Amino acid sequence: MAEKKLVEAITSRNDDFAQWYTDVVKKADLIDYSNVKGCMVIKPAGYAIWELIQYNLDQMFKATGVENVYMPMFIPESLLQKEKDHVDGFAPEVAWVTHGGLTPLQERMCVRPTSETLFCDFYAADIHSYRDLPRLYNQWCSVVRWEKETRPFLRSREFLWQEGHTAHATAEEAAERTELMLNVYAEFCEKFLAIPVVKGRKTEKEKFAGANATYTIEAMMHDGKALQSGTSHDFGDGFARAFDIKYTDRDNTLKFVHQTSWGLSTRIIGAIIMVHGDDSGLVLPPLVAPTQVMIVPIQQQKEGVLDKANELKEALGSFRVKVDSSEKSPGFKFAEQEMRGIPIRLEIGPKDIAMGKCVICRRDTREKIECNLEDVTQTVSKLLETIQNDMLARATKHLQENTYKAANKEEFIKAFNEKLGFVKAMWCGDRTCEEKIKEEMAVTSRCMPYEQEQLADTCIYCGKPAEKMVYWGKAY
Amino acid sequence: MAEKKLVEAITSRNDDFAQWYTDVVKKADLIDYSNVKGCMVIKPAGYAIWELIQYNLDQMFKATGVENVYMPMFIPESLLQKEKDHVDGFAPEVAWVTHGGLTPLQERMCVRPTSETLFCDFYAADIHSYRDLPRLYNQWCSVVRWEKETRPFLRSREFLWQEGHTAHATAEEAAERTELMLNVYAEFCEKFLAIPVVKGRKTEKEKFAGANATYTIEAMMHDGKALQSGTSHDFGDGFARAFDIKYTDRDNTLKFVHQTSWGLSTRIIGAIIMVHGDDSGLVLPPLVAPTQVMIVPIQQQKEGVLDKANELKEALGSFRVKVDSSEKSPGFKFAEQEMRGIPIRLEIGPKDIAMGKCVICRRDTREKIECNLEDVTQTVSKLLETIQNDMLARATKHLQENTYKAANKEEFIKAFNEKLGFVKAMWCGDRTCEEKIKEEMAVTSRCMPYEQEQLADTCIYCGKPAEKMVYWGKAY
Repeated sequence: MAEKKLVEAITSRNDDFAQWYTDVVKKADLIDYSNVKGCMVIKPAGYAIWELIQYNLDQMFKATGVENVYMPMFIPESLLQKEKDHVDGFAPEVAWVTHGGLTPLQERMCVRPTSETLFCDFYAADIHSYRDLPRLYNQWCSVVRWEKETRPFLRSREFLWQEGHTAHATAEEAAERTELMLNVYAEFCEKFLAIPVVKGRKTEKEKFAGANATYTIEAMMHDGKALQSGTSHDFGDGFARAFDIKYTDRDNTLKFVHQTSWGLSTRIIGAIIMVHGDDSGLVLPPLVAPTQVMIVPIQQQKEGVLDKANELKEALGSFRVKVDSSEKSPGFKFAEQEMRGIPIRLEIGPKDIAMGKCVICRRDTREKIECNLEDVTQTVSKLLETIQNDMLARATKHLQENTYKAANKEEFIKAFNEKLGFVKAMWCGDRTCEEKIKEEMAVTSRCMPYEQEQLADTCIYCGKPAEKMVYWGKAY
Repeated sequence: MAEKKLVEAITSRNDDFAQWYTDVVKKADLIDYSNVKGCMVIKPAGYAIWELIQYNLDQMFKATGVENVYMPMFIPESLLQKEKDHVDGFAPEVAWVTHGGLTPLQERMCVRPTSETLFCDFYAADIHSYRDLPRLYNQWCSVVRWEKETRPFLRSREFLWQEGHTAHATAEEAAERTELMLNVYAEFCEKFLAIPVVKGRKTEKEKFAGANATYTIEAMMHDGKALQSGTSHDFGDGFARAFDIKYTDRDNTLKFVHQTSWGLSTRIIGAIIMVHGDDSGLVLPPLVAPTQVMIVPIQQQKEGVLDKANELKEALGSFRVKVDSSEKSPGFKFAEQEMRGIPIRLEIGPKDIAMGKCVICRRDTREKIECNLEDVTQTVSKLLETIQNDMLARATKHLQENTYKAANKEEFIKAFNEKLGFVKAMWCGDRTCEEKIKEEMAVTSRCMPYEQEQLADTCIYCGKPAEKMVYWGKAY
């Protein structure tokens, strides 16, 4: 009965995807709602995924020369206001601190919604010479944006992220870094999260407040909607001019630096859930699964069963393995392991032990394999790799099959009417057309992909000459 | 000249310890002051030390069953007020958020100064049965306390730390966990930071706001002052009663949980500096040194020198090694490596290469060793271990030599007059005596150590029967 309860508790993915998402997040024990409105509690099962993301992404950053730092969490109001576009973009959604203890502050401060202004203020004092460049700093921290509607991982008033902030001698170097970090994000998503992404540039309308250009990786969820999964911004010398960040070049003249910033947040956990999950719950890619193998002893009260289970755990020491020796029934344990998305379940009971075997079950396909006990390590090792690869292959197939081309407005409407996904279509570059398309068809431009195609000569909306091919979609 | 400048820039440790500290923190590039009053910027060299502390301490936590989570950074005012002693202790020094965007909040919230109230609020909803216990949660985050006087690492308005919060079925289990975590801290300080500590219990006057008992590790700095380096609190069921955190026990009755919390912060970096540093700057224990070996090529423009330096770096791949191939003079590089506290400097020039040798220099003793190139890996490996051990031995000797015993008031005054350190003395247990001693002699009780001695039968201040032996000292 308890088993049924656990499984029945989640809505089917195809009945109500939004409710399915909420159910999984809760039943897989990733988060809990808190009494602090709009903020969530990230529970051990959820935070451990973030720790694996942090660890692996951080290694990739460091391999490109990035160093970690920590900036204050507060931004004095005057500092936030230095770059006009930036303050316009963020001021309406920040939390303001007005009192320290019992005393009103002379100048109120916001809790960082992002830290461009703090890094700029620091760089202005810290950078003097071309020898000080590039500066390749990153920080792992939490940020606050006063959202009205919130959803676990996807949108909350406080979230965890990393924000990289770099300063360079030339515009070219800044542009290169912007692209390099976008590529790091894309590679990370494919390799570790088994999520394929579309890489491209945001339109003027969708770019970051204060940036010259914003680049994005867009992932497709199971329901065909897009999730912006990481962004990389090229600031040119805009912030440098606002904050007066200059360096003395080799030719002894003063020049403005060129800057970038790039971020990826706990939102990406929402992508993992919505790309890979199924009606039994979460399905985690092995490389970011906090537990990769759950050993479930069958008839564990019988002599030797628990010992054998623990022995197998030892043998599998190079993986992240747990034994579920709780008092629950095996059926309940199976349901729980599936709900939590643990990639491999290993069942071992008295009969298996007598035959020198065990049963290995893949979470992603539910395929069961009988395995000789002496082959367990090798089998698990190979299977984790296979699962990781198969998950990426399935997600890639889903992305491809749900990406359509539209040469004109009729095809565009038809494509979105048939099934939600991405639609590639030509655009004149005019903001008005972009806004009209959003208004009339409730889809937004996701990006102008690096890989451009010439689907037609004219904009699908206005018929004027086309400038760019754009990915369109509904977004989270 | 540049070399001189770097070295001259720091005050001698014995001339002005406080100024020496400020100089080292700045010249070793650990932090920078920010334009956010009372907050610091932790620069790469400082943050990398914190990353090593985090990584190693986190491993030790996890080995005891602790899991990481993340709670919101805001505490609604009504939540902060639930435990009376706690709110009295913290309310005067918190930062208040009063507006979200343009809208005033219905209830103001503070930025967490510590998260007992948030964890309690969560546990009250999350814990139902004895099966849910113990809960062993920890989070790595930043906290805010509106200090008036700030000093880098030692006291700042925002600082980084970990805070563990556990819930248990019985008072005994909570008491055991409190002691276990204090022991983890003490072991961590000795093993990784080469800092010996005194373990003991705080007096009622000095305990944490809301705790039944607070335990502390106290380290002695080079100047003889104490630095409280980590604390572990036993809350009994005080918070559980205030927040109504109950569980159904095996006997089917409702019982209050018993709780603990324990924290260690970036303050500990201040301890590393003040225990080990010298007049040439920082001296880092190898286990938490972001760079363990700095290879300095001599006459690097000569053919083969840089190649050999890089080859050595490769050979030393299992350690954290850098080659300083910048354009600075070798002398400047030496001074910089010393200022930054890098444990080993490896000098290699054309003459060394011709002889198949290099020069290895210990940061802690400045001893120089000639080393055959084929023995470099082994020599460095052993030397790092030796340096780590010797640093602990020196710090332990310093602690022992500057800890005095006083059987009565005269001896107590004399001990503190001679040289600053710790003084062990008997105390009646009366808060008034403790306050008077502080008032008259400007020293505070550091702790009632686990290892009690019977130095006399009476309190050194009032002459009434003694209850406890106490460590006294001046503190940061």
